[in-house]
Amino acid sequence: MVLVDCYRPGLCIIFSIIFSLTVNAQQNQKVERWSIFEMKLKGPSNGNPFIDINLYAEFTYAGKKISADGFYDGDGNYIVRFMPTEEGEWIYVTKSNEKTLNERKGQFICTPATKRNHGPVKVQETYHFAYADGTRYLPFGTTSYAWVHQGDSLGNVTVKTLAGGYFNKIRMCIFPKNYEYNRNEPLFYPFEGKPLTSWDYTRFNPDFFRNIEKRIAQLDSLGIQADLILFHSYDHWGFQKMGSDNDSRYLKYLVARLSAYKNVWWSIANEYDLLESKSKADWDRIIATVSTQDPYGHLLSIHQAYELYDHSKSSISHVSVQSEATHLAGDLRARYHKPVIYDECRYEGNIRITWGNLTPQEMVNKFWRGFTKGAYVGHGETYTTEKPLRASSASNDILWWSKGGILKGMSQTRIKFMRTIFEAAPGTLEPVQFPLLKGLDYGAIGFKEDYFLVYFNLDQPVSAELSLPDNNYAIEIIDTYNMSIKRLDDKFSGTSVIKLPQKPGIALRIAKIN
Amino acid sequence: MVLVDCYRPGLCIIFSIIFSLTVNAQQNQKVERWSIFEMKLKGPSNGNPFIDINLYAEFTYAGKKISADGFYDGDGNYIVRFMPTEEGEWIYVTKSNEKTLNERKGQFICTPATKRNHGPVKVQETYHFAYADGTRYLPFGTTSYAWVHQGDSLGNVTVKTLAGGYFNKIRMCIFPKNYEYNRNEPLFYPFEGKPLTSWDYTRFNPDFFRNIEKRIAQLDSLGIQADLILFHSYDHWGFQKMGSDNDSRYLKYLVARLSAYKNVWWSIANEYDLLESKSKADWDRIIATVSTQDPYGHLLSIHQAYELYDHSKSSISHVSVQSEATHLAGDLRARYHKPVIYDECRYEGNIRITWGNLTPQEMVNKFWRGFTKGAYVGHGETYTTEKPLRASSASNDILWWSKGGILKGMSQTRIKFMRTIFEAAPGTLEPVQFPLLKGLDYGAIGFKEDYFLVYFNLDQPVSAELSLPDNNYAIEIIDTYNMSIKRLDDKFSGTSVIKLPQKPGIALRIAKIN
Repeated sequence: MVLVDCYRPGLCIIFSIIFSLTVNAQQNQKVERWSIFEMKLKGPSNGNPFIDINLYAEFTYAGKKISADGFYDGDGNYIVRFMPTEEGEWIYVTKSNEKTLNERKGQFICTPATKRNHGPVKVQETYHFAYADGTRYLPFGTTSYAWVHQGDSLGNVTVKTLAGGYFNKIRMCIFPKNYEYNRNEPLFYPFEGKPLTSWDYTRFNPDFFRNIEKRIAQLDSLGIQADLILFHSYDHWGFQKMGSDNDSRYLKYLVARLSAYKNVWWSIANEYDLLESKSKADWDRIIATVSTQDPYGHLLSIHQAYELYDHSKSSISHVSVQSEATHLAGDLRARYHKPVIYDECRYEGNIRITWGNLTPQEMVNKFWRGFTKGAYVGHGETYTTEKPLRASSASNDILWWSKGGILKGMSQTRIKFMRTIFEAAPGTLEPVQFPLLKGLDYGAIGFKEDYFLVYFNLDQPVSAELSLPDNNYAIEIIDTYNMSIKRLDDKFSGTSVIKLPQKPGIALRIAKIN
Repeated sequence: MVLVDCYRPGLCIIFSIIFSLTVNAQQNQKVERWSIFEMKLKGPSNGNPFIDINLYAEFTYAGKKISADGFYDGDGNYIVRFMPTEEGEWIYVTKSNEKTLNERKGQFICTPATKRNHGPVKVQETYHFAYADGTRYLPFGTTSYAWVHQGDSLGNVTVKTLAGGYFNKIRMCIFPKNYEYNRNEPLFYPFEGKPLTSWDYTRFNPDFFRNIEKRIAQLDSLGIQADLILFHSYDHWGFQKMGSDNDSRYLKYLVARLSAYKNVWWSIANEYDLLESKSKADWDRIIATVSTQDPYGHLLSIHQAYELYDHSKSSISHVSVQSEATHLAGDLRARYHKPVIYDECRYEGNIRITWGNLTPQEMVNKFWRGFTKGAYVGHGETYTTEKPLRASSASNDILWWSKGGILKGMSQTRIKFMRTIFEAAPGTLEPVQFPLLKGLDYGAIGFKEDYFLVYFNLDQPVSAELSLPDNNYAIEIIDTYNMSIKRLDDKFSGTSVIKLPQKPGIALRIAKIN
């Protein structure tokens, strides 16, 4: 049973529990819906258990059978993890080529999810997301590619920062990262072998994966989705070009270990098109491997540097896009009929590289523009505090985007403010189909005739002319950067001209009243 | 002889002189190069001289013959205007179907241009402009579509504003304008007839054209190019759909009257694609008419609302584009191999319409982005001071973009500051072809290895890494919005890291020193 540290002062409860069983030791165990049932088995440690031993378990509920692969965790320990998706009695039986692991049977009772557990996130209403229990999920993501590889001390600071409630998703790499501002070696390596270049790809390092699992569980306890990047090119170890057999073994091992975590998303790659050793056929095979192995259908995406992957493929659940043009979300929605997340639209920061020096105003603007066009947007932060005369490659600076730590910027607070507004909406917000703003191309989303959000970008109009339905509406003027909300005195209906503050970053919240 | 009022305090000299002759009254007249030789002839006023009488003159210089159409100016007055392009003796002879106007002969001496007279502007070095005497011309334009139609009082205020030296080009319509914020009727109409709808398109109103000529001459005296818009759709008089015969007569009359003004540019249309009555074939014919009639080959462009006209046509001298993406100039340069002017990239202002509410920061940013990508950018201003609850159509506000008057904004001063920087460059600035900024996609233009300008947009990098040639350079940090220039103490050569102020709108000026 893993007890996760709690970083929210005054809200320190036990969450994210893994029920870890030694098989047959307990019967009638209770497992909370969408949490992890874990079965530990003892087996052989000689030879190479990673490749010699096959193990999976069939979990059956009301005649419905789900198979989950097990994995070798070192020291003769074999584990099968499973996330029950239905309440009630489940029975299971193991299958293995190793006699001692085969035909182990048991059962457990899946109990209702507790209040903070809404299950995994799925696509809902074509362009949006919801948890499995139907609760709406609006991704307000951030990016910290290699935070899990920086060691416990900094990792714990990162978790504490994330407990600030700014974000509910984080993009993070499984493999360690070698890139500007991140030249240090990781805490663990994924394979046995000799860094940097001689790996035994047939032998995984359980410590590496346990470290990631610990962090995924912590994220889950904070209500944060772990958007796990399975491949990337920021690599001097060779993990981006292991060859297809090793790729497959890695993916199967990873999915076996992680798919039972309800907050896992699969991001097949970051900037897939920078991995020169992989062809489109390789990526298709990788996508197929992950989606076939994953018993739960976790969200799956693939992020590009230049050329958007073919998002018409059914295994890809949503469009994870790198582009600063978040206001063009309508084009991507129309093209793919899937949710659109601008996971990378440049980062707030001050580094000299173009993608890492947005002002906080512009970062917040990109969020509002994307969201009010029916998409979602992700954050990242790249502030250096070192003297600029030092080359970035030699920097020991801790940039959030790569290593985590603390946030030094100004946008995260505005994003949190924005999140409260969007999460308070009465329903799924879709681009408004009538000429609310007399056809002007500003972001405008709404729920039925009940509720609208309009955003005027960084423009400075002194007024807005609204064409509202024939109901009574209350209007609030939102200063998205200064985080103020001011309600106008009147009721509004039909055509109305509203005075605006003539400054950048203004939005309107328009809500039907009786 | 027209003496133009001078609005520059302390610099009140006589410029822009038209030499107006009654033929045969004087011989051996002197006419300054690129100024106007004007011949006035008396002829019949009965019938319809606008269509009954043909008149042109052949001007001959060193065996080279140039024909210039004359025009009827009312009251039995016939005028031929001519801009001599070479110094020395010119002879001329008129040709007409009217005996009293035919075979009138004379000569004049073309004297050297005086200091402020550089001749008409031409394309130079593919992507740029120069006056006929070779002096570089960098268009820093503005827009005031209907300023000449607002009457003398406001028109004079506009000229006084223009004398502030912010701009050296102005886009302005020949036809009056009927559009939001401009619902008043014009000072004059171009044709005889009954407003609004019953016109005799065969009879021009000379007062209408004389008013425009007066303003063109005033602009010339201020060193401002008159980018004359020949057609537009903001029209409730029908001038946008007169039919091809009337179009041709109008164009020939206009070119006969105006082409001798050295500061005239032909902008065939503003938003040509909004004139639904004209086909591509119509536009091609209009372009052909203007370029055939014009003896001097003035610059000629056609401005779009949505679809860029086919700028590969040889009669179109440069790309006059409506787009806010001034940083994408490289695409248009590569596509057309012509100068690119973003004549409309939205306007600084506060009106509710999307195109008219840029902050001054963003207007200045669009200038710097375009110029540092090898293009040129035009200004416009749309500030309303009226209560916002009044509909824009009923507004009496004087918006610079339409009526002229005074400038209320903040960008024009920054554009003037920018102009001093660009005009001080030692040569034609072209996009830098070597990785000056290590390949980062910021605007960077330069002249040989002598001089570079780099612009960091509205980003906030704390440093820049420069890869300079192996010379010594002085570097200045320009705050484009706060209009400061700070020279760094060191000399720089090769790879250098420069500390920047970490704020939006920063540029570098890099100049070779000994």
